[in-house]
Amino acid sequence: MKVSVIVIGDELLIGQVTDTNSGTLARDMAPFGWEVDNVQTVGDSAGAISRAISHAFGLTDIVLTTGGLGPTKDDITKRVLCDYFGGELIHDPDVTANIITLFDKRGLKLNELTAAQAMVPSSCRVIQNLAGTAPIMWFEKDGKVLVSMPGVPFETATMFPKAVLPALLERFGSDIHIEHSVTLVTGYTESALAMKIASWEESLPSCLHLAYLPKPGLVRLRIDGLHSDPAYIREAVADAARSLRAILGDAVFATADLTPAEVLINECRSRGVMIATAESCTGGNVAHELTLIPGASDVVAGGIVSYSNEVKTAVLGVSPDTLAAHGAVSHPVVREMAAGASRATGARLTVATSGIAGPGGGSEEKPVGTVCFCARYQSGDGHVGEETVTYRFNGNRARIIESATTRALILAATLLRRES
Amino acid sequence: MKVSVIVIGDELLIGQVTDTNSGTLARDMAPFGWEVDNVQTVGDSAGAISRAISHAFGLTDIVLTTGGLGPTKDDITKRVLCDYFGGELIHDPDVTANIITLFDKRGLKLNELTAAQAMVPSSCRVIQNLAGTAPIMWFEKDGKVLVSMPGVPFETATMFPKAVLPALLERFGSDIHIEHSVTLVTGYTESALAMKIASWEESLPSCLHLAYLPKPGLVRLRIDGLHSDPAYIREAVADAARSLRAILGDAVFATADLTPAEVLINECRSRGVMIATAESCTGGNVAHELTLIPGASDVVAGGIVSYSNEVKTAVLGVSPDTLAAHGAVSHPVVREMAAGASRATGARLTVATSGIAGPGGGSEEKPVGTVCFCARYQSGDGHVGEETVTYRFNGNRARIIESATTRALILAATLLRRES
Repeated sequence: MKVSVIVIGDELLIGQVTDTNSGTLARDMAPFGWEVDNVQTVGDSAGAISRAISHAFGLTDIVLTTGGLGPTKDDITKRVLCDYFGGELIHDPDVTANIITLFDKRGLKLNELTAAQAMVPSSCRVIQNLAGTAPIMWFEKDGKVLVSMPGVPFETATMFPKAVLPALLERFGSDIHIEHSVTLVTGYTESALAMKIASWEESLPSCLHLAYLPKPGLVRLRIDGLHSDPAYIREAVADAARSLRAILGDAVFATADLTPAEVLINECRSRGVMIATAESCTGGNVAHELTLIPGASDVVAGGIVSYSNEVKTAVLGVSPDTLAAHGAVSHPVVREMAAGASRATGARLTVATSGIAGPGGGSEEKPVGTVCFCARYQSGDGHVGEETVTYRFNGNRARIIESATTRALILAATLLRRES
Repeated sequence: MKVSVIVIGDELLIGQVTDTNSGTLARDMAPFGWEVDNVQTVGDSAGAISRAISHAFGLTDIVLTTGGLGPTKDDITKRVLCDYFGGELIHDPDVTANIITLFDKRGLKLNELTAAQAMVPSSCRVIQNLAGTAPIMWFEKDGKVLVSMPGVPFETATMFPKAVLPALLERFGSDIHIEHSVTLVTGYTESALAMKIASWEESLPSCLHLAYLPKPGLVRLRIDGLHSDPAYIREAVADAARSLRAILGDAVFATADLTPAEVLINECRSRGVMIATAESCTGGNVAHELTLIPGASDVVAGGIVSYSNEVKTAVLGVSPDTLAAHGAVSHPVVREMAAGASRATGARLTVATSGIAGPGGGSEEKPVGTVCFCARYQSGDGHVGEETVTYRFNGNRARIIESATTRALILAATLLRRES
């Protein structure tokens, strides 16, 4: 089944916020073989919204909209839907009851504007929004369905899989089976990787499709298979993944759709090893990526953001002589940082970063983008294994920090696999 | 001038990556009064791409596309454009020269797939892409223009303002002036804020438009003005912003379009005060937000991610008795964390977080989402000012971490303003 998505809001068109809802919907539908055919993003204008709806119904029988339902006056979606599907705005007492429950929980008082959210087109069926105040509305006309959902990402992410998708699946059914397999590859650019696996890719059966997702420091290869026979497609995807991984060997970092931080956390957890970070240029982002993962506290001891040389010395015990002799962005300094983080936190696995994220601070010898890393693992019997490397990343400050973070996570996971 | 944007790529429709290019284009065009009228996201399918182009040219005279130009075989945009605008694919030696230069810089060797990127439709004018290998292509037909740009966000963010937008402005001209003013407001939900300023909003002249952007812990109010007279619209926006801020008083956190981290960095810089963090539940994200800002090293000493109690005790000097008596998520512990971070790093301003990000770890008394904060400022003469608060945030783990990070940054900036 193909689905059109319409994302509504002036704030999206002026680039003030980025749409993540359409991706959430796509990921939720994928296991059922349903696909997003197209996404339209339009402003809070009656003409634009109704043109988008007509265009979408020309392409697919199911249209999902998000946004344009807030309590403030720049939102007009509800009136447009009422005009499009007929009927008039009526008060829905269940919506009011839901809003009162939510407000009570947060200790807030109901106000007029929020109460106005309980007005809904008489032509729709309301699906209660358990995550927010804007009601979810289901419209049907000539065998086609439109569901209007809130723009707040958290609300849509909660309610779509819980209530909207099940209702859609029941209404339209699903008989195509989808399987996919993800392989994370390090050490190749996208085009070099494409050449390496060109003949393998040529030989794929037509029910399989390969997609490349390059990220700084990592290429994610995704094999998608669609077929009416679930056993057949499961086997075909597994076969293709096996032969792909045989070609790539050590360049395969992971064989599941995980972030580098998830891979590292899993490696630590399976070995009962605690990890800590010592971050200069990544400024806490390595620790942040690790601690975003539920249950991280089992294996993450913590970290030191040693942005200034004073903190490198005072907290991590980096020698002022080493700093003076080699500079902060150097192998000797990241080695002492990694050792210091282990001493300070008691963690056996540590990873240190020091580099120049820019835009200032670069030199001829160490240009912006230069980052030194050290991963360090101390085994139960006191043996220390280390890997120290320097990379040079392209891009602006945010991209250099992101690339360096990914690289630090990969380095620590790879060292841990090798040394333990 | 109104512009349509088409974002191309299967990876967007399956939710593997999120489109940020359309927002970048919108923000770059806004100062010239140019607006994104609509965004369509479509897959790497010839039919979908050419339908999207026809639909877009029905709405606007300018169409910008991003994506679908990579070296790997899932990209077919170039062939579709060649069919749409006529001509045939020819080799462009300048594109090859540009690719060789870029590869040399990165120490990479040219491969066949990348070399194929130098094939372009004979109907287009090439704009050299200084940030990547895929050429930028300018097509013109019946007075309408389509510019095809790469999908890699960094490349489009670099090349659109540098080369594409100037060419478009020269071709179409711009005579509308746009002014905007942003006010960041804390302490109100979106709907409560809307009620507070309802009568002010009613009285706005028709050339001004107000948009709400709620974020966890913060509402961004943006006044946009469009007019042919630049002096008039500048004055009108400034007047409206002044009266808005008079109504909101202390709830105004900032009067420019800054992130909370930027506000805090600016406050520290103007006073010559160094800051450090002591993070438990935010796991390094407060330090990360601060160090994302260019030049952060002037005022950010660093931070301690004290995820485990051992690190709270060993590095921050939190007393084991305090932890035992009150638990890690408590006012006494965040106070000791903030004091410890100041001691360890020498920074006079510190902010500490400790909470339950979930999904596990909640209790009746301290449910998931409970976060304790302490901001601490030590003046030059040794006087210590502190603010300790507890908030309860909604949402999943990532959202609780994001909300708590914003709140920590606001708390530190507010304390610094009050105490210094």
